[in-house]
Amino acid sequence: MPHRSRLTAMLSLFGIWGLASGPALGAPAPGAGARAYAAVDPFIGTGGEGHTYPGATVPFGMVQLSPDTRIQPRKDGYGWAAGYRYDDRTIVGFSHTHFSGTGHSDLGDVLLMPVSGEPKLERGDPDRPGSGYTSRFRHDDEVAQPGYYAVTLDDYGIRAELTATARVGVHRYRFPQGKPAHVVIDLRTSMYDYPGKVLWSRLRVRPDGTVTGFRETRGWAPGRQLYFALRFSRAPSGHQLHDTEQDLPYKGFPPPGDKDPRQRAQIEGRQLVAAFDFGRTQEPLLVKVAISPVSEEGAIANLDAEVPYWDFDRVRADARVQWTRALAAIDVDAPAPARRSFYTALYHALLGPTLFMDVDGRYRGPDNAVHQAQGFTHYSTFSLWDTYRALHPLLTLVQPEQRNADFVNSLLAHRRHSPYGVLPVWSFHGLETWCMIGYHAVPVIADAYLKGIRGFDADEALAAMVASASYGPYDGLAQYMQLGYVPIDEEGEAASKTLEYAFDDWTIARMARAMGREEIAARFEKRAANWRHVFDPATGFMRARKRDGALREPFDPAASGYGSDYTEGNAWQYSWYVPHDVAGLARAHGGEDRLLARLDQVFDAQVDPEIFAHMEDITGLIGWYAHGNEPSHHVAYLYAYAGQPWRTQARLARIMATQYAPRPDGLAGNDDLGQMSAWYVFTALGFYPVAPGSNEYVIGRPFLPRATLNLPNGKRFTVVAEGLGDAKPYVGRVLLDGKELPRAYLRHEEILAGGELRFVMQAQPNTRWATDPAQRPYSMSAR
Amino acid sequence: MPHRSRLTAMLSLFGIWGLASGPALGAPAPGAGARAYAAVDPFIGTGGEGHTYPGATVPFGMVQLSPDTRIQPRKDGYGWAAGYRYDDRTIVGFSHTHFSGTGHSDLGDVLLMPVSGEPKLERGDPDRPGSGYTSRFRHDDEVAQPGYYAVTLDDYGIRAELTATARVGVHRYRFPQGKPAHVVIDLRTSMYDYPGKVLWSRLRVRPDGTVTGFRETRGWAPGRQLYFALRFSRAPSGHQLHDTEQDLPYKGFPPPGDKDPRQRAQIEGRQLVAAFDFGRTQEPLLVKVAISPVSEEGAIANLDAEVPYWDFDRVRADARVQWTRALAAIDVDAPAPARRSFYTALYHALLGPTLFMDVDGRYRGPDNAVHQAQGFTHYSTFSLWDTYRALHPLLTLVQPEQRNADFVNSLLAHRRHSPYGVLPVWSFHGLETWCMIGYHAVPVIADAYLKGIRGFDADEALAAMVASASYGPYDGLAQYMQLGYVPIDEEGEAASKTLEYAFDDWTIARMARAMGREEIAARFEKRAANWRHVFDPATGFMRARKRDGALREPFDPAASGYGSDYTEGNAWQYSWYVPHDVAGLARAHGGEDRLLARLDQVFDAQVDPEIFAHMEDITGLIGWYAHGNEPSHHVAYLYAYAGQPWRTQARLARIMATQYAPRPDGLAGNDDLGQMSAWYVFTALGFYPVAPGSNEYVIGRPFLPRATLNLPNGKRFTVVAEGLGDAKPYVGRVLLDGKELPRAYLRHEEILAGGELRFVMQAQPNTRWATDPAQRPYSMSAR
Repeated sequence: MPHRSRLTAMLSLFGIWGLASGPALGAPAPGAGARAYAAVDPFIGTGGEGHTYPGATVPFGMVQLSPDTRIQPRKDGYGWAAGYRYDDRTIVGFSHTHFSGTGHSDLGDVLLMPVSGEPKLERGDPDRPGSGYTSRFRHDDEVAQPGYYAVTLDDYGIRAELTATARVGVHRYRFPQGKPAHVVIDLRTSMYDYPGKVLWSRLRVRPDGTVTGFRETRGWAPGRQLYFALRFSRAPSGHQLHDTEQDLPYKGFPPPGDKDPRQRAQIEGRQLVAAFDFGRTQEPLLVKVAISPVSEEGAIANLDAEVPYWDFDRVRADARVQWTRALAAIDVDAPAPARRSFYTALYHALLGPTLFMDVDGRYRGPDNAVHQAQGFTHYSTFSLWDTYRALHPLLTLVQPEQRNADFVNSLLAHRRHSPYGVLPVWSFHGLETWCMIGYHAVPVIADAYLKGIRGFDADEALAAMVASASYGPYDGLAQYMQLGYVPIDEEGEAASKTLEYAFDDWTIARMARAMGREEIAARFEKRAANWRHVFDPATGFMRARKRDGALREPFDPAASGYGSDYTEGNAWQYSWYVPHDVAGLARAHGGEDRLLARLDQVFDAQVDPEIFAHMEDITGLIGWYAHGNEPSHHVAYLYAYAGQPWRTQARLARIMATQYAPRPDGLAGNDDLGQMSAWYVFTALGFYPVAPGSNEYVIGRPFLPRATLNLPNGKRFTVVAEGLGDAKPYVGRVLLDGKELPRAYLRHEEILAGGELRFVMQAQPNTRWATDPAQRPYSMSAR
Repeated sequence: MPHRSRLTAMLSLFGIWGLASGPALGAPAPGAGARAYAAVDPFIGTGGEGHTYPGATVPFGMVQLSPDTRIQPRKDGYGWAAGYRYDDRTIVGFSHTHFSGTGHSDLGDVLLMPVSGEPKLERGDPDRPGSGYTSRFRHDDEVAQPGYYAVTLDDYGIRAELTATARVGVHRYRFPQGKPAHVVIDLRTSMYDYPGKVLWSRLRVRPDGTVTGFRETRGWAPGRQLYFALRFSRAPSGHQLHDTEQDLPYKGFPPPGDKDPRQRAQIEGRQLVAAFDFGRTQEPLLVKVAISPVSEEGAIANLDAEVPYWDFDRVRADARVQWTRALAAIDVDAPAPARRSFYTALYHALLGPTLFMDVDGRYRGPDNAVHQAQGFTHYSTFSLWDTYRALHPLLTLVQPEQRNADFVNSLLAHRRHSPYGVLPVWSFHGLETWCMIGYHAVPVIADAYLKGIRGFDADEALAAMVASASYGPYDGLAQYMQLGYVPIDEEGEAASKTLEYAFDDWTIARMARAMGREEIAARFEKRAANWRHVFDPATGFMRARKRDGALREPFDPAASGYGSDYTEGNAWQYSWYVPHDVAGLARAHGGEDRLLARLDQVFDAQVDPEIFAHMEDITGLIGWYAHGNEPSHHVAYLYAYAGQPWRTQARLARIMATQYAPRPDGLAGNDDLGQMSAWYVFTALGFYPVAPGSNEYVIGRPFLPRATLNLPNGKRFTVVAEGLGDAKPYVGRVLLDGKELPRAYLRHEEILAGGELRFVMQAQPNTRWATDPAQRPYSMSAR
């Protein structure tokens, strides 16, 4: 592993942030966290279309300080959604905000690049070395660990190291002898770059040497403001501030220093770049950069609160303490490659949602106004269409109740500030993007509530869920409420929307029932059955219907794309999305056997991947099954609902073997803020939350010899796979605390109680275990 | 006066804002204020190039709600700096922020237009009626009074009335029968409009019907953010929100309502316009619009605090109370036309600086960050190059000490927040424009301090003054400090800058001396003599010198323009700018007679105004004397320094007769935030503050039979002009409290003591009075 060095920094157990924000886990095995930490490979997912980043961050941290290998124009930007692509051989600089695993993108704020010699102010063409400040690098010189990244910039001979606290990125640069050292700050670059993206920006050099500024962009989120404050460990000997925008119709009157960029104390505009000079020195230069959603003063306060000293190694050690504690939530015994995959998946699952709040509790909401958090920590970056499925359920098991409660509190805060009065759909940096479909904050809240997470106002939560499910102008919801389905002649992707609304509605009903709110429960139980309105018995597919009730024609179950009946998928992928009523789905198909036959058709089809060339998100194909995108994530588990758990086991083995690998291109598709990784963690453990809100996990099969969940309540739940190996891919017996478990699902309270889940693996399918209808996973109709 | 109606509204003496912010004047004569109020004609200056606005505002109010007759592109925008031109026959709408009398411009925020029938969303071509929402109007239907404006929009038959509190504009619309009523809100329009000016904007319709939003512009001030909150007295029956920007490279994902502008709850973008529907009704519709520098919530709080009721007449009556109190500061007996000119001038002098702070004390500073005022009221809109001359000195006489102290506190706050650590140059809405030259916040502070204004930290003030006079990167100041002058080969308009710096430096010395800070006093006294470095004895002109010491050649004393030796002027206009050392100037010329001869050349020259066709600010010519611009404002008074006060008297008579008139085009040039008007007020009273910081007023001659200053300290100072009339244009005798006053100047403490200044006018010049050098006005060298 050339890109992972041995750990040399001393563990600072007294790091202020490590202690303050580490989860209150009950007694993990000594050294478990350190072993877990060492197993993480942040490069996994940086190749292919995983879209993860290798840089430095702490669990759920606001800063994601990571190298950007190219700045691509938006239309070509898909592969560079996280800034870094493993195939690239250049680094443009280190920017402070990144998404982990998105398809669409934004961020890449406040890019720093250390250079030696005369500083260039344009990034240049990565394919023409020396044409700009961009430098070549080699993977041999890279180190990536949780909370730490290092690389050598070959064009300059500069060693650059990065680490971070929650709100501060810390850089350490070692410059070569004999050439003047500089740091370029470029506010022009972004992920998904396009002309006009920067609406306004500012750079200010304060008398004490602090550099502050802000940037406002119209990217994925419109009108996003981000502030920053930056300090160098040595005072620069000079600086230059530039606005490179040409052909301005009007600039106003020139401020002081306008004739000499080296005399400027501040610059404002839309295309700002600066360089700071540090002379010829080999003394390492440290740079601390805090960000803030609120103001430059907020960023300064964040900087002073989190990193009041000049000690890179201390910050790095603190980050390591935080990661060690967070990763200790699951203690795994397994061969090295499996541990690497597993802990990297867990690492990726602990990156978001991300903190979005200053140390004084202020944050920016979807109204783009500043708010004060009262009694909770505010998080943002909710990729909810992805993460309601497995990521949030995983976090309820591996993170403290308070963190999960604060995710809910943050969703509720968003709704309070929303100009539309609704919960977030896809939000980041406090703002709404309206990306993807559904109102999937609803199942996140319902799942948390039903699992006993408290620390938020359940009445407010239920009201927010109902409001979000009742906001007519959103995505055909008025028609859905009127007709029981979204009519395709009035709203695109109507089949997908109807299906996902129906599931979300079911979770509202579940939570309302648990709260004794019978009227709401009854109303949304009725809506939960709306999936039936898009089921076409003639073809066995879910299809979009028009307002007049007719199915849309012509119909091609292979067709996908914007404006089609489906969202990032086709009929083969979306027709099984009734996680809350698989029994009903089977009956609609005319019985389990018919459904099972259709599932086989999904996996066993011969599909030319070119059919999805226009849909970059649909990847990881096994037949029609597309593991690279979320609509497929529950499908392999459906066999178990239909009485054939061994078929689930076989499909999972195939998926795990082909869709994940401990190498940079080891993710079959976008990690989607941890959803792909959370799927891996659950599946490796042997169970999966097919229907969040049900408090049940469908049992698949384990992929680890032994794994212990060190639960937030202090208990431990251990999964053992006896005889695990390629020769024994099937589950023979399942024992919970030594007693035979005859059913294909596990209850949440059984995990929380602690204990042992033991699988006895065998070579041949056990076609009798958990086949009785009474032993199958939750199904609304069945119970 | 068709445009002034009789006062019909009852005076509400209990108006919350009237009582709170009226000046604490000592016992004005009963009814004086009401008579003064009735004399004001807000249309004066709206024709020609006065650039005043006729709309509604309260003294120093944050809202200036006024009709805009056209939205002109920036390059043609000079004449429309205040939005309204008397010659126009159309009204585009009513916007909430305006400058009074500027040359350059900006503002025109949040334009509302009531319309009937189908609402058009483009303003159209004012020359093609019906091509947009712009309407025709007639002056016969207009009413303009302090704090009130009304007009009939002929294209719609709508009667529109406007009034205001400090932070809230209130509209009352009466719609015609039979057609649906609408209100258009256009966030695209501005004074000095140009493509790309709006950086970002937002419109939000809240569930309670409140409409909020913001607009960020790159105009005269870069990155200016202004927020607003608006309520209608009746809930609209519908609305539509539009972004009219075309060809966007990227818009993000559509928010709810994107397909139907009538379903939108919010819209963000750069070209926003909205229309609200009110059905067919003749019931008057009220609209309250609050603005805020801080946030939409701040605007809502301002709205709730200042106008919690739906009572247009009450708001109008409160505004009238405030104006009545403020105008009562001077009680004038004179014929109606003179009273109209005088009180309109006083009215214009009481419009700015303008409040710029929310009711909770928060404001935005030159760092574009939000700050909290601690113990003072924050004002902005400091047109200092203009207003340090006579406006601020006038306000020390007619406004409470606290108001003047808060102007200083606001200047100091600006410096604390300044990225450059300097006092404002030309600031508005908290931001710096760097317009014009000098550091003229310095004489404003020095003049206030030396006149005994307290309530600010004098040590901080002096430090701020010194810092502003020592900031090298500003406008050749580093060179000025090094060489004693600004070198023209390194900095444009070097002669003007050197002259004005030297005067400002003198005021620092004066204040430092008064504070016992001898080192600073000595240092800046030395700098005060720097005017000598640009005096050319060979030509008798002030001229720019190069770094090598040589005067710049070729030299043309008639030449003006950007990049010339002078700022908005030429050698004939700028060569007399040594207000702090006129005696020294006379000696430099070789004696008083030489200086007097040059002054005659200034006034008596035959000048083709076409020579200034490229300089729109140079207007009001009498020879080379240009009353329409500030560098000339002290020149007529210089005769009195040189021992010929009767020549000052004669020149003033000519200026007053030709440069002011009680009609729309009655101002010879831009009113410049009240400087032109303050000149009028002082000159009409009979004295003028040629050298702020000297605590002396040069005596000219009175133009009013009788005027009483009701001073902030409760005393009264009355000026009587015995025998005033065209037949007696000269001062024969001057008596102060019955005793002969032998000198050509008045001391500030003499005014503050109260009493009577009596002029005895006569037909012939008195060539003996105040000719003795000891009786002449202040001159640094002379004493």
